[in-house]
Order: sequence, then structure tokens, then C-alpha cells
Amino acid sequence: QVRCALNYKQLSFRTEFVLVHELAATAQRIGAAPTGTHPDGSPKYTVPIIVDESVPGTVISDSAAIFLYLEKTYPDPARPLYSVSPSGSAIGVDVLAAMTIAPVLWPVYLKLLLPALERWVVPSSREHARAAAAQIGSAAGQQVLQPGEQRFEDIITAVNQGLEQGVVSVLKTHEAAGKIWIGGERPVYPDFLLLGALRMIELWRPEVFERIVDAGEGVLGRYYKAGERWL
Amino acid sequence: QVRCALNYKQLSFRTEFVLVHELAATAQRIGAAPTGTHPDGSPKYTVPIIVDESVPGTVISDSAAIFLYLEKTYPDPARPLYSVSPSGSAIGVDVLAAMTIAPVLWPVYLKLLLPALERWVVPSSREHARAAAAQIGSAAGQQVLQPGEQRFEDIITAVNQGLEQGVVSVLKTHEAAGKIWIGGERPVYPDFLLLGALRMIELWRPEVFERIVDAGEGVLGRYYKAGERWL
Repeated sequence: QVRCALNYKQLSFRTEFVLVHELAATAQRIGAAPTGTHPDGSPKYTVPIIVDESVPGTVISDSAAIFLYLEKTYPDPARPLYSVSPSGSAIGVDVLAAMTIAPVLWPVYLKLLLPALERWVVPSSREHARAAAAQIGSAAGQQVLQPGEQRFEDIITAVNQGLEQGVVSVLKTHEAAGKIWIGGERPVYPDFLLLGALRMIELWRPEVFERIVDAGEGVLGRYYKAGERWL
Repeated sequence: QVRCALNYKQLSFRTEFVLVHELAATAQRIGAAPTGTHPDGSPKYTVPIIVDESVPGTVISDSAAIFLYLEKTYPDPARPLYSVSPSGSAIGVDVLAAMTIAPVLWPVYLKLLLPALERWVVPSSREHARAAAAQIGSAAGQQVLQPGEQRFEDIITAVNQGLEQGVVSVLKTHEAAGKIWIGGERPVYPDFLLLGALRMIELWRPEVFERIVDAGEGVLGRYYKAGERWL
């Protein structure tokens, strides 16, 4: 989602990948703030983190904070990240709108992506990935549900219904009016969250992605195609 | 919520009250479209309905449709009802943002307001109100939960937590930046929904209202005070 916003804003950047089990040490080394606390009280670090080399000492953790930082530091009237007030101080409708997306896609992440995570991490990260997944309630290391299996199909049905009642119904209304984005003429914060989430699903499990973008007679697939250039 | 938007837009109107058990007949007489279907297949009518006497033949049912109609018919650059595109064709972020409010307040309506409905309807509507409430799963006619009772307190706690994680967290951020509304400088669609919902709670059960506007160290109460002039 952050990469998507950076590309949209035409800001140049380079991406550095960090091994899951080295994330905490790396974050501490570069001075990134923790984004939460583990049950045992220790600081929790998550990606994305940005380091802005043009403003010495600037290290920002957490997507929401990164979006606000980018909008305040690099305002561009032609490409604002929020619907209201490009200053970034009025984040309301976009942040609330985004809240309708994450809970709907969460079961996809938790039940269909995370259990398949081990395929993707390097062997030295496998144990850490397994523990992290278990901590948020995912069946990592267990059976990876496949299309055709009842539990897989139930999850897809529920997610597509949730999308249909929310973001897809809005996208259909907009498509009928010749508009693409949740934000109308321009993509805004919830658009970047949705595009980023769809990208993650496509990369991790293309067979799941195919079933999600089917939603709303393909409107979600057309939406994703339109945003793909920023991903 | 519609009255709130009409006042905000400075449009003149008069309100006519319709008895619950006469709603269907009244709607049919004035040519209002049904907003759904009853389980038995018969058309379902709901309020609000507007009749625009300045545009003959204009009768609109359903809040969302009324908001779109008002914005298209009476655009006012200083007082748009939506964050994006005052033409009303890009409704996305506002409609999605509003979707984070209704589900949080739904238990208040269903469990704390509807069972108390019989106090407020005229005797001839009582039976109809009871049946309508039962149809949507409310315990109308049963015990009206009171502050201090465990079930009452549990509902308030859950609702306040839901508000805190959603709209109240946004209002706090905005308050810190000197802004009041979900829409920032101006109220938008989800603001009118929230103000209307709070008004309904205040009118039906002030003792419930007091416990809801406590949320977020009073930010919701201050928000409501600021919007009260349009209610």
C-alpha cells in the first residue's frame, strides 16, 4: 500500500527486504518506533517502515503514520492521498472508509494466506514466521486450504458477500458514473489499502486472488487492473 | 439525518409525522417507492421520504437516495454533502465511512431503544410497532434494560469500545487539529448519519445517550453539541 502511494505520488524510492526474524533488530538499529507491544510486554515491530534520506533522521513506522507523513511532507495538489484537506490533518472519511475493507479481507489473510506463508519464507525464517502466525491465531504449518474444499469455499463466499455489501457496491456505482476509484476521480487512502491487499493476495496465492476479483461481476478485477501500474 | 442535512444546506421544509401503521398506505398514496420487501413478498416502506414540491412528481424514499438527490438538485459549493465531487456521483469514501457507524450503534437501537418503543407510540400503533420490532429481532414489549443492569452495561461497554476504535478515534485526531467533523472542516454524509443517530438515542432514551456521548473523554458529546443546531 505504501509502495502504491509512493508510485502514485511519483516519489522515488528503493525497497529493502528484511528477513522476518531480523526485523526487530533492524528496526532498532535504524531507530524505527515500535508499532505495538507483544503479550510479554516487549516492543513489537512491523513493516512497512520508511526512511526519508532527504530529511535526516526521519524514520516512520506504521502505514497510517507513513501516509500522513507523505501527505504533509510532499503535498501535491494533483495527487493528494486523502479526500479532504490535502494538509493531511483531516483524515476522517478516508480512515473510516478504510476500516470497512480490512475486516472483510482479514479472513483471507488469516485463513488462506498465512498458513501458506512457509512456502515463501527462507528456511532460516520459517520458525519465526510460524510463531508469528500462531500468535495472531492462524493455522500456520497446518493444512493449506484449496479451491473446491468446503472450508475454502465458505471463506470465499463470506468474503465476496462482505465485499459486495461494501466496497464493491460503491465501485459498481462509480463504474456506472464513469469513475474508477473509491475516491471518485482520484484514488485515495482506502484505495491504496485495497490495491495493496489485493496485490498481497495475488502474490501469495493467485488461485485465491482469482476468486476474490470475480466479485461484483468483475468490477474488482477491472479496478485492480487500473491500479496495477502503481503496485 | 435528512432533517440535519436539509438544515445544514439551508433548504426550507416542513415535517409531517405519519403513524407507523399508516405508513404503507401513506407511501402508496403519495407515490413513494418501497425500500425493500417483507418476508411474505409484499413491498416494505420506510421513512424518511421526501416530497419536493418545487419539482412536481418528485418523491424519494431511502436516506442514501435522498442525500444523492439533494446534492444533485441543490448543489452548494459552500455546503456539499459529500467529501468528493459535489456532483454526487462519487459517493465512495463517505458511504464506506458511514458503514463503520451503523453496525456499531445497531445494538443500541435493537436492544436498548426498540424495546422501549411502546412508550412513545400512540396506542393505535402499539401492536404494529411491536410486530415490526419483533420482525427485526428486537425484544419489544419485553424488559427495558436499565443502567446498572449487567446486560445494559455490557451493551454500553461494547458500543463505546466500537466507537472508540472507529469514529471516536478519528474525532480525537481531528479535535487535536482544531477540526470538528468526520469530514474535517465541513460535515459530510457520515456526520449527518451520526448526528441523526445520536439525536434518536437522545430523544428515545436520554439515560442511554448520556452513556454514549461519554465516549472518548467527551469528544462525542462536544461533537454532538456542535451539530445540534441542525437537528
